[in-house]
Amino acid sequence: MHPVIEWKDGAVVMLDQRLLPAETKFIAMRSHLEVAGAIRDMVIRGAPAIGIAAAYGIALGMAELKGSPGLDQPGFLDRSFKAVSAAITSTRPTAVNLFWAAARMEDVYTEHRGDHSRLCRELLAAAEALDRADFEINRAIGRNGSDLLRDGDTVLTHCNAGALATAGYGTALGVVRAAVESGKKIRVIAGETRPYLQGARLTVWELQEDGIPVTLVTDSMAGLVMNKGMAQAVIVGADRVAANGDTANKIGTYSLAVLARYHGIPFYVAAPLSTIDHETADGAGIPIEERDKSEVTNFRGQATARPQTTVYNPAFDVTPAGLITAIITEEKVLFPEFGPAIAALQGLRRK
Amino acid sequence: MHPVIEWKDGAVVMLDQRLLPAETKFIAMRSHLEVAGAIRDMVIRGAPAIGIAAAYGIALGMAELKGSPGLDQPGFLDRSFKAVSAAITSTRPTAVNLFWAAARMEDVYTEHRGDHSRLCRELLAAAEALDRADFEINRAIGRNGSDLLRDGDTVLTHCNAGALATAGYGTALGVVRAAVESGKKIRVIAGETRPYLQGARLTVWELQEDGIPVTLVTDSMAGLVMNKGMAQAVIVGADRVAANGDTANKIGTYSLAVLARYHGIPFYVAAPLSTIDHETADGAGIPIEERDKSEVTNFRGQATARPQTTVYNPAFDVTPAGLITAIITEEKVLFPEFGPAIAALQGLRRK
Repeated sequence: MHPVIEWKDGAVVMLDQRLLPAETKFIAMRSHLEVAGAIRDMVIRGAPAIGIAAAYGIALGMAELKGSPGLDQPGFLDRSFKAVSAAITSTRPTAVNLFWAAARMEDVYTEHRGDHSRLCRELLAAAEALDRADFEINRAIGRNGSDLLRDGDTVLTHCNAGALATAGYGTALGVVRAAVESGKKIRVIAGETRPYLQGARLTVWELQEDGIPVTLVTDSMAGLVMNKGMAQAVIVGADRVAANGDTANKIGTYSLAVLARYHGIPFYVAAPLSTIDHETADGAGIPIEERDKSEVTNFRGQATARPQTTVYNPAFDVTPAGLITAIITEEKVLFPEFGPAIAALQGLRRK
Repeated sequence: MHPVIEWKDGAVVMLDQRLLPAETKFIAMRSHLEVAGAIRDMVIRGAPAIGIAAAYGIALGMAELKGSPGLDQPGFLDRSFKAVSAAITSTRPTAVNLFWAAARMEDVYTEHRGDHSRLCRELLAAAEALDRADFEINRAIGRNGSDLLRDGDTVLTHCNAGALATAGYGTALGVVRAAVESGKKIRVIAGETRPYLQGARLTVWELQEDGIPVTLVTDSMAGLVMNKGMAQAVIVGADRVAANGDTANKIGTYSLAVLARYHGIPFYVAAPLSTIDHETADGAGIPIEERDKSEVTNFRGQATARPQTTVYNPAFDVTPAGLITAIITEEKVLFPEFGPAIAALQGLRRK
C-alpha cells in the first residue's frame, strides 16, 4: 500500500481518508497550516498517524521560513517554532502521540536552532525517522500480540487501528496481520464505528486489500456477536493510555469492553509506547474531544435528523484499566496491574 | 399528528417513514400487495403499526375481490383469504403482532364469509377497531409505566417505539409522554439505531414535534452515557415477547440491556399484550429477520463500504428475561419471574 503520509518534493502528501473507500486521492500540502487543518478535519486520523503528520508538519513549518528576513532577528526562530508547534498541537486534544511527536521535534529544534538550513534538514530527518520507526514498532506490536490469538479465532475490532492509522501495518490490525503471517487463520468482524465510519470505510477496505476475511457489522451488533460466540477476542487501538492503564480510544470502545467482560471475552489494547502518557495518572485526566454535531446528524450531505437537533458527540471514551485484559506494546505485552507494568516501561519510550 | 396509517376512500394510506425527517409524504395503496410491499420495505415499521397495517391490508385484499366472477365458485373466497393473508404475513418474520392481527382477521372472516359485502364491512370494522384500540392500549401502557420514572429522569431509548410505530402515542415513548403529562420533567436520549436510523429519523422527530427534550447519540455512546450518569432508565419497545419474558427487539437492544445491568440502571420493555407470544417458550424460538446488506454498506445512496463487502445484518436481537427489570403492558407492569406473570395474563390479550 502507498504510504498514508510522506514527505515528497518539499510537501507533506497525505491520502485523504475521508474519501475512502469511494476514492483514493492524495493531497500535497506546502504549509504547516494546511497540515494542521488536515489533522483537525480528519484527512488522516489514528493516534500514530497523527503523530507522524505532526512531525512532518512542524518540519514543514520551519522550512517555510527559508529566505525570511526575520531569520536574522533575535528570538524570531524561537517564536516561530512555538507558533508552528502550537498550530499543529491545537488540532486534536485526545491523541497523546501528537504532543509526543511535537516534544521530539522540540528536542531537535533546541539542539540545532543555530543554523536554519541544518535545522530544517535535522527536523525532516527526525520526522522521517519517526515515520520509519512507527512501521517497525507496529511489526513488533504485531509479533508480541499474535501469540494471544489461536488458529481459527475471529477478532472483533472497532474504528481503524490499522495501516491507515499508522505508518503502515497497524496496531490492532498489526496483531491480526502478524497472526495471519504466522500461519493462523484469523477472521475479523469490524464495527462500522459511527459517526465517522472508520470501521466500514477504512478497516474493511484495508483488510480486503490484504485478503484477510472481514465482516462488517453496525456497532450495536457487538453484544449479539459476542452472545453468539462469533468473536473470541476484542482488539482495539488507543489514543492515549494513562499511567494506570485507563485507555482513551474511539467512542464505543468502552461499551465493547463492558460487553466483552460480560461475555468472558478477552479485551486487548494494542498501542505503541508513544501512546502512553506517564504524566496523566488516570482516565479522568484525559481530555475528551467533542466534535461537531453535524457528524451525527448527517452523512455526506444526507440528513439523518433535523439540523436543530441536540447532539452529544464525544469522539472518544475512556475504558478503565480493570476492563482491559492486556495492553500489547512493541516492548512486551502488559498484564494487570497495569500501573506497575507501565511504570517499569517509563524511559523506554524515547529509545 | 396525522395518523401513521388510516383507511381513506377505499385505500390504505401510510406516512412514508423512510423519508422522515426530510419529507412528510403519504402513500395511498389500493391493493393488498402494495400494503405487503410497504411492510416489507419499511414504509411503516414498529410491531404495533405492522399489526394495524396487516389488518387493513387483509381488509383491502378481500375488498379487491368485489365484482369478481369467482365469488360464485365454491372455495374461491377461502383460497383468496389464505392468499391475501399469506401475502401480508410473509413480509417480516419477527414482529408477532403481524400474525396476531392476521389471526384476528381470520376470526372475522370465518364468521362472515357467507356474504362478501358484509364480510368486507366487518373486516374493515375489525381493522379500524384494532387501530383505535391500539391507541388506547398505548395510553394505558404509558399510565402504567409512568410511575417507574421520577421527576428529572433522563430515559435512554433505542429505535422508535413511539407514535410512529403504533396507532399513536407509542409504547416506550408512550411511557415518556405519560410521565410528562403527569407533570414530571423527563428528558430522552435517543440512540440513532443503525442501520435504519429509526432513532435519529423518527424518535428525535416525534419528540421534537411534542416539545419533549431529546438528545441524539450514536449507538456506541450508550456505555459512556450510562457511565457518566446521564440516563436513569432504559425503555425500549418489543417486536415479540416469548412466554418466559425473553424479548426480541431492534438490533442493539441486547447490548443496551447488558450495559444497563453493568451500570445498575433499570431496563424496561414497553409492549402491548398482542406482542406476547404465548406459543413460543423462549427467545431461542423467535425467528430473527436478516435484512439486505446494502442497509449497512450504504446510507441513502452514499457508500460506506464497497458493495462486495461481507455483512452481518440481523434486524433484531433477543434480550434474555434475566436482563429485564420490568415489562410494561396495558394491563399491568410485570416483574420477574416473567414466566408465571405472563402465564397469568394469557387470555387477556383478546379482550
